Amino acid sequence: MIKVVLLVLTEQWADWEAAYAVAGINEEPGFTVKTISTDLLPKISIGGLRTEIDYSIEDFYDFSNVALIILPGGYTWAERQYSEIAGFVREASAQGIPIAAICGATIFLGKHGLLDNIRHTGDELECFEIENGYNGRNNYVAAQVAVDKGFITANETAAVDFAYAIFGLLKIDTDEEIELWYNKFKNGIAH
Amino acid sequence: MIKVVLLVLTEQWADWEAAYAVAGINEEPGFTVKTISTDLLPKISIGGLRTEIDYSIEDFYDFSNVALIILPGGYTWAERQYSEIAGFVREASAQGIPIAAICGATIFLGKHGLLDNIRHTGDELECFEIENGYNGRNNYVAAQVAVDKGFITANETAAVDFAYAIFGLLKIDTDEEIELWYNKFKNGIAH
Repeated sequence: MIKVVLLVLTEQWADWEAAYAVAGINEEPGFTVKTISTDLLPKISIGGLRTEIDYSIEDFYDFSNVALIILPGGYTWAERQYSEIAGFVREASAQGIPIAAICGATIFLGKHGLLDNIRHTGDELECFEIENGYNGRNNYVAAQVAVDKGFITANETAAVDFAYAIFGLLKIDTDEEIELWYNKFKNGIAH
Repeated sequence: MIKVVLLVLTEQWADWEAAYAVAGINEEPGFTVKTISTDLLPKISIGGLRTEIDYSIEDFYDFSNVALIILPGGYTWAERQYSEIAGFVREASAQGIPIAAICGATIFLGKHGLLDNIRHTGDELECFEIENGYNGRNNYVAAQVAVDKGFITANETAAVDFAYAIFGLLKIDTDEEIELWYNKFKNGIAH
C-alpha cells in the first residue's frame, strides 16, 4: 500500500518551505504526495503558482494510508482563522498521524492550542503570544527545527532542515542516504 | 507597467529550485510571475504539485514587458528535446531578455548551444559533454552560481544563491535589503 503524505495548501502558500520535503517524498516509490485544502479551488503560492487541489478537507475521512500531514507557511495563516484545518489536524493527530508545520503554519497550530504540550520552534511566536494569549511559550525552543511527540516544527529559513527531519521521521531511505542528501543541500556543492 | 517574469514549467519540474526566486519576485508590486510551457496543460512537479500554466509558448510573441525567463530544473530536461523551448529562449535572449537556468535546465541550454559563449555552471555538464558533444566546456566555472552576458546559471543545491543573483539582476529591492534576505536564508536564523 502506497503511503499518502498530505500537503495542506492555503492562499499565498510559501513556495520554498515544503519544496524539498515534497520532492524527496514523492519521488520515493512507496509514497505519494497529495494536496488538500478547505475546498477544491486551486491555491496560488506567494510566487504566483496556481496549484490544483486533490482533496477537500470536508470530504476526507479515511486516514488509514496517511503517513504525514505537512503544513507549509504562507501569508494567510495569520490573517484567517482556518478552523476547519485546525479540526482536521486535531483529528489526524488524535489518530496518531504526525504533523509537520513550518513558519506561519506553526503560529497557526499554536493559535489553535495544538502546540501547548509540544516542544516547538516557529517564527514570530513571541509576537503571537502577545496578541493572542498563546500559552505554549514554555515549550518554545530556539532552534531551526524541533521534533516532539509527532510534531515537526521549523522556521521559515529552515526548508532543508525541515525536509531532513521529515525524511527521518518517514524513513524514506536509509539513514546514510538521508544524511548524504542533507549534507549536499545544507552545505551546497560546487560542481 | 508591471514587469513579467516567465517561469518555464516542464513535466517533473523541481519544486525547490526556483521557489525562493519566484516568491521574492512575485511579492514585489512592480513584478508578476507567470507560468509558461509547451502547452496549457498543468505540469506536475517532482513533489506531485499539479500547477496550472498561464501561457503557451506557441502563442507568446510580445516580450516588451518580460523582465526575465526562469527555467527550473526537473527530470524531463535530460530525456526530452524541448526544441520549442530552446527556440523560445533563443528568441527572448536575442531580444535582450535575461535567462536564468538551474540544474537540469542548464544542461538543456548547453545541449541547444545556448551556453557556448557564456561562462556558466551547472550540474553534470561533464557527463553531458561526453554523451552529446557539448562544446562549452571551456566556459564552465566550478561555482554555485554564474552570471554572464544575461545568463544566470546555478547548481541544484544553490536555490538560495540562484534567487540572490536573480534579485540583484532584476533589482527587486535595494542592495541592502537583498543582502539582508540572502544572509537570512543562506545562513538560517534560529528564533
